Amino acid sequence: MLEQSKLSNALKQLADIEDDMEKIDEQVELFRLKSTIPIFKKRNMLLQDIPGFWKIVLSEHSDFADFIQVSDFKYVDCIDKIEINWPIVSEHKSTEKHKVGDFDIVFHFKELKEDDDMFPEQTVTKKFRIEYDTSKLKKLPKDQDEDSLKEFGFLTSEKVDIEWPTNYSKINPDKIKDKTSAEGKKNYRAGMKSFFGWFRWTGLKPGKEFPHGDDLATLFSEDIYPHALKYYTTAHRDLDDESDEEDEKEGYHGYEDEDDETLSRKKPKYE
Amino acid sequence: MLEQSKLSNALKQLADIEDDMEKIDEQVELFRLKSTIPIFKKRNMLLQDIPGFWKIVLSEHSDFADFIQVSDFKYVDCIDKIEINWPIVSEHKSTEKHKVGDFDIVFHFKELKEDDDMFPEQTVTKKFRIEYDTSKLKKLPKDQDEDSLKEFGFLTSEKVDIEWPTNYSKINPDKIKDKTSAEGKKNYRAGMKSFFGWFRWTGLKPGKEFPHGDDLATLFSEDIYPHALKYYTTAHRDLDDESDEEDEKEGYHGYEDEDDETLSRKKPKYE
Repeated sequence: MLEQSKLSNALKQLADIEDDMEKIDEQVELFRLKSTIPIFKKRNMLLQDIPGFWKIVLSEHSDFADFIQVSDFKYVDCIDKIEINWPIVSEHKSTEKHKVGDFDIVFHFKELKEDDDMFPEQTVTKKFRIEYDTSKLKKLPKDQDEDSLKEFGFLTSEKVDIEWPTNYSKINPDKIKDKTSAEGKKNYRAGMKSFFGWFRWTGLKPGKEFPHGDDLATLFSEDIYPHALKYYTTAHRDLDDESDEEDEKEGYHGYEDEDDETLSRKKPKYE
Repeated sequence: MLEQSKLSNALKQLADIEDDMEKIDEQVELFRLKSTIPIFKKRNMLLQDIPGFWKIVLSEHSDFADFIQVSDFKYVDCIDKIEINWPIVSEHKSTEKHKVGDFDIVFHFKELKEDDDMFPEQTVTKKFRIEYDTSKLKKLPKDQDEDSLKEFGFLTSEKVDIEWPTNYSKINPDKIKDKTSAEGKKNYRAGMKSFFGWFRWTGLKPGKEFPHGDDLATLFSEDIYPHALKYYTTAHRDLDDESDEEDEKEGYHGYEDEDDETLSRKKPKYE
């Protein structure tokens, strides 16, 4: 019985250790954010001088392409600024109590003007927050266990206004009057699945929203945004290789290869 | 031309930012190590009171099984202590200059005594070091690019002495006298591919050593060791489910289910 109580005691203490480890994970994440955010800010300033930076990163990112329909890329190409803010390390005081996993993605779209399609310049901020209260969910997401959601939380967001391109008027949920007809339903669903549908994603109505909206948000916050330079360098080098024959004197964007190599000497870790 | 020089200047500064990011990654890793190592130490103390802890973790870990042959598991089951030390945060002063990616894995094996097989109690330390000098490589590993190895480094180790089980005498490279005969070669290769062969792995002779020895090392340092409690809890719960019918009164290791739940309430993040 002495061995028994020793074991039982050890198991109880190990449960505490798991709690400690989770706290440390959070502290490490906070340390990472505090260290990297100033660098991201400096980088974003410099990116203003690199034409087509985000267009190149997004159009060459294979995981991103899994979320985006081919017809959406015309508008994704209009994204010329992305900024992510983590409110937990923001300078601005907030009344809301923030968690390490909360973040806001700010997109700036430049204008698109074509004879048969118009898309206005706009800045849209989509905020993502960790939620633990599963009673807010209309239903449980597929393959998800309620206890895990309660313990580790799940990403949520609020529907945010974004102007859709005129070409998408037919599938813009706000413009579909009859949502009950077969045609109306089909168009509604097509709209919800488009990149613009993602801006309506709340994370509370699984099956009725942009699919895997949380994964796309996390792809931005954990991969595309922090590793954008590396993706740019790889994409850029690949594009250079392709265009070498046609365009031997100038690099992809019309600057000398020499400059290209200044950046290319860093091999991306995340290929 | 003004635009041109602005662009060229931005690209140069972005290369510096990539360097800064790499330094931050290292600082974050160092912060993580410094925060988690005291917890690991506390955990390892407690594990001494949990019989069969590492046996359960290792035998139920599917990625680990990819590296280990079925016949090796009899000896893997003898591992009753694992400790990883990261020399960069070690208290002991060292003359060697260490990197964040350097680590030592200490295994303790308990004795195995069978009529036809003997395996002695022993403690074996296998040290892994990041190397950047590719001239030390006998040849380049498959699918690896020399520039990447030079920049990001590669894991190396030194052959370390370990007593093999008597049952493995035939394939123990140190005991094979004729390594040129077909039989000798076959046995030599079988030995190099066994778990014991991994202790001879140097990382410098790709194709001639334990396959993917670096990946197995990293599996220990980045996954099995830090997340051992979560793997134990999952494995343990699964084993409990299986043995529920035969053994309804007692838990898997003869302690009450109540204690089991103390630990089980934490769901593993890394399933």
